[in-house]
Amino acid sequence: MKVLKRGEFNFRRGYIVYPRLVVVVGVKLEDKINFMSVVWNSPLSFDPPLYGVSIAPKRYTHDMLLTAMEFSISFFPYEMAEVVEKFGTVSGREVDKVKEFGIELLEPAALDVPIPAGAYAVLECEYFDHKLYGDHTWIVGEIQAIHYDERVTGSRYNMPVLDFDRARPVLYGGSGEYITVDPRSIRKLR
Amino acid sequence: MKVLKRGEFNFRRGYIVYPRLVVVVGVKLEDKINFMSVVWNSPLSFDPPLYGVSIAPKRYTHDMLLTAMEFSISFFPYEMAEVVEKFGTVSGREVDKVKEFGIELLEPAALDVPIPAGAYAVLECEYFDHKLYGDHTWIVGEIQAIHYDERVTGSRYNMPVLDFDRARPVLYGGSGEYITVDPRSIRKLR
Repeated sequence: MKVLKRGEFNFRRGYIVYPRLVVVVGVKLEDKINFMSVVWNSPLSFDPPLYGVSIAPKRYTHDMLLTAMEFSISFFPYEMAEVVEKFGTVSGREVDKVKEFGIELLEPAALDVPIPAGAYAVLECEYFDHKLYGDHTWIVGEIQAIHYDERVTGSRYNMPVLDFDRARPVLYGGSGEYITVDPRSIRKLR
Repeated sequence: MKVLKRGEFNFRRGYIVYPRLVVVVGVKLEDKINFMSVVWNSPLSFDPPLYGVSIAPKRYTHDMLLTAMEFSISFFPYEMAEVVEKFGTVSGREVDKVKEFGIELLEPAALDVPIPAGAYAVLECEYFDHKLYGDHTWIVGEIQAIHYDERVTGSRYNMPVLDFDRARPVLYGGSGEYITVDPRSIRKLR
């Protein structure tokens, strides 16, 4: 094993901790709607159901979300990697991404948040907490509704579960690279 | 799209937001060493380099980590999924996982944390912060050293980057299922 100590590595290029399941955060503020890809994200609690996303303060979505106090978290299929890439690299300050990328919007069920067609799952989140960690803000939402595409999910446990034979989630590999899972590699160990 | 509103879903079975890159948290406290798999995790900041892991307060690792105030975060290959599964389902209260699972330990470079052989990358983390979110504690560490296996990494950007042709990261798909990526699906979009 090689070692890089603090001062010898630049975590901005810390792609060794990738690939990661990338999500798209959606916010609606008055008549403005914006979507942004977020690679740093994680579930945080079962009950209440909480989910965190990490967004740099300079990003357009940051203040917009903290004003709207609600947001959506969408999971896109690998086939839509180009859109996910654009959501992450084009700023909502300059471009109306909904119009520019031809995003169709579906009806939310619990909150006033944008639900993009094409995602296989979308969480409607109410603001729960936020905290600055270094150069990014960790924004936590409480899940108030879950949308999911029946065509790509199984229904074990009375809950939608991704069926890897039918849906391939898009993972971000770092440096503009996208990748998905190999359904043949599934191993059930419990 | 189908919708489940709050009260209609149990996020304990929220596998629709999987698969996720699973990490193994290692802690040393006095002469005791323990490892635990953590599915909910995320990078949080470039500078300082911060990384968060979500651990339920009832877990043996929880108090052990908050006493030791330092920990390691390891990334294992798909081929070691059985060990990752055991790290996550067997408690360090009952079993000495290092001895039981035959884990060889390597030398740390910056902190007194356990570095497991077999991982393709390990981060040495100093305690930075922790906060209770619902039923799990979000524990944040500041990365003081990065270990990585040269055999499975490329070196773009003067930083180790996972080479998906040589290393296949282990992802957790929920419900005891493990999966890895398909190297043929890599698409460079930037």
